[in-house]
Amino acid sequence: MISISKTKFIHSLQKKRVRDETRLYVIEGDKLVKEFLKSGIRIRLLAAKPEFIDSLLPEEKAAIDNIELAGIDELKRISSLKTPHNAVAVVPFPEYGTDFDVILENLCVALDFVQDPGNLGTIIRAAAWFGIKDIVCSQNCVEVYNPKVIQASMGAILNIRIHYAELGSLFSLALKRNLPVYGALLEGESIYSLEPEDRGVILLGNESKGISGDLIPFITKKVMIPRFSSPESGPDSLNVSMAAAVIFSEFARRRI
Amino acid sequence: MISISKTKFIHSLQKKRVRDETRLYVIEGDKLVKEFLKSGIRIRLLAAKPEFIDSLLPEEKAAIDNIELAGIDELKRISSLKTPHNAVAVVPFPEYGTDFDVILENLCVALDFVQDPGNLGTIIRAAAWFGIKDIVCSQNCVEVYNPKVIQASMGAILNIRIHYAELGSLFSLALKRNLPVYGALLEGESIYSLEPEDRGVILLGNESKGISGDLIPFITKKVMIPRFSSPESGPDSLNVSMAAAVIFSEFARRRI
Repeated sequence: MISISKTKFIHSLQKKRVRDETRLYVIEGDKLVKEFLKSGIRIRLLAAKPEFIDSLLPEEKAAIDNIELAGIDELKRISSLKTPHNAVAVVPFPEYGTDFDVILENLCVALDFVQDPGNLGTIIRAAAWFGIKDIVCSQNCVEVYNPKVIQASMGAILNIRIHYAELGSLFSLALKRNLPVYGALLEGESIYSLEPEDRGVILLGNESKGISGDLIPFITKKVMIPRFSSPESGPDSLNVSMAAAVIFSEFARRRI
Repeated sequence: MISISKTKFIHSLQKKRVRDETRLYVIEGDKLVKEFLKSGIRIRLLAAKPEFIDSLLPEEKAAIDNIELAGIDELKRISSLKTPHNAVAVVPFPEYGTDFDVILENLCVALDFVQDPGNLGTIIRAAAWFGIKDIVCSQNCVEVYNPKVIQASMGAILNIRIHYAELGSLFSLALKRNLPVYGALLEGESIYSLEPEDRGVILLGNESKGISGDLIPFITKKVMIPRFSSPESGPDSLNVSMAAAVIFSEFARRRI
C-alpha cells in the first residue's frame, strides 16, 4: 500500500518542472527497471507488484532506497500508461557533463527541434544500436525524461549520453577541429555513395520543418536518402526517426 | 454548419466495424486531402474551414460529393486528433484485388502481427519511399484504415497496396516460384553482406514477439541488422519500423 503522499509525488514527476527541480524521473516496466538495476543505478523508489519484488535478487533490493508493494489500481494511479506495467520506479537524472571536446572524439548526433517524444525515443534506441555515444539536442527539442521518450527508447537511455545545448557552438568547434557536419536534407549527396569519416556530427532536423535556416551554414556535407518512388507520387519525406536509422546504419556499415 | 447526423456519421467511422460495413474511412489534414484529390480519388464528404474550401480548384470541388463548412469546434467533434486540422474527409476504401501472382512480380513485404498503428503507418511510408508496391499483412495486424495508421503513413497509403491475407499461402506460392522469403530476425546473415534478389518477400514480425513460430519454416534466408553496441548493454532490438526502414534501404541501394 503506497501512501497518498508518495502516490502524489510519483504522479507529480509527469511534469517537466518537477523533474527539473528534483532531478528525478520515472521509468516503467519490469524489464526497464531490471536493466537500470543491472547498470548500477540506485533506485530511489520502487512501486511494484509482489511477484516483481519477489523476483529481485538480494543485491538488487539493496540498491533500492524504498520498496513499496502495489496493486494494479495503485499502479494505474501512478503510471503514465493506460495499461500499467508491474513495476514503476523513480530514478535520478544521470550525472555526466557536456564537454564538446569529449563528444567530438567520436561520431555524434545533433538534433534540431525534434518535438515528438516517440521520435526522440526511437532515435535514441537506433543510435545505441549503431554504436553512437552522444546525442546533442537543441534546447527546443522534447525533454528526454518525458515518459513517452523513456518508453520509446526501451532502455537505450542507459547507453547514450543526451545533452541539451546550443548547437551552433558544437558545430563551430567541429569546424575548428576540421570535423565534418553532415546535414540530413532532401537534397545533397546520396548516403549510399558517401564516404563518411570516423568522427564528426550528423545533424537531423524537425519533423516537418527540417533543419533550421540558421544552422544550414554550419553543414559541411549535405546528405540525403535517395527516394525510389516516382517523384509525382509517394511520400515527400521519411519520418525523422526512420531517416535517422537509415543514416546511422549507413555510417555503421562502413566501419565493419 | 454540419448537421448532427453527418457529425455522428463521421465520428462513427472511428470504429472499425462501421468502416468495414460502409467501406469508408476518414483522412485528416489539408495536405492529405489535397493529395487524395490529386490522385483522382472521389471524396464522399469534406468538412473544412472556409479558407481550405476556397483554396480548392473548381475541378477539385467537382470531385467531392458533399462539401460542408466547419468551424474549429465542429472539426474538434469529428476529428480523431486533439488538435484538428483544417480539413476532414470521408473517402472510400481503395478497390484492388489481392492476387499473390501479381504481388510476387516485385519485391514485396509481409507483416506478421504488427499491432501498433504508428508502426504500420511508418512502415507504409518507408516502403513507399523505397519503391515497394505491396504489403501483405497477417489478419491479426492492426487495420490500415485506423486513423493513427493513416496519420503516420502521411499519404503513402495512396502509393502502396495493403492486403490482409494468410501469410502461409503467400510464402507457399513464393517457394513454388523459387522466390526467396527473407525473414528479419536477431540472428542470420548480415543485411550488409546479403546479395538480395529483385523479387521475393521481406517478412517482418511483431513488435515484441518477432516472427511467429509457425512462419519460421517458410523463411529461406534469415537476415539481421548487425548491432554496433556491446552485447552486455544497449537495446536488444530495433523498433520494427526502424528495422523495416534499414532493410528496405539495403534492398533498394543494390538497385542503383
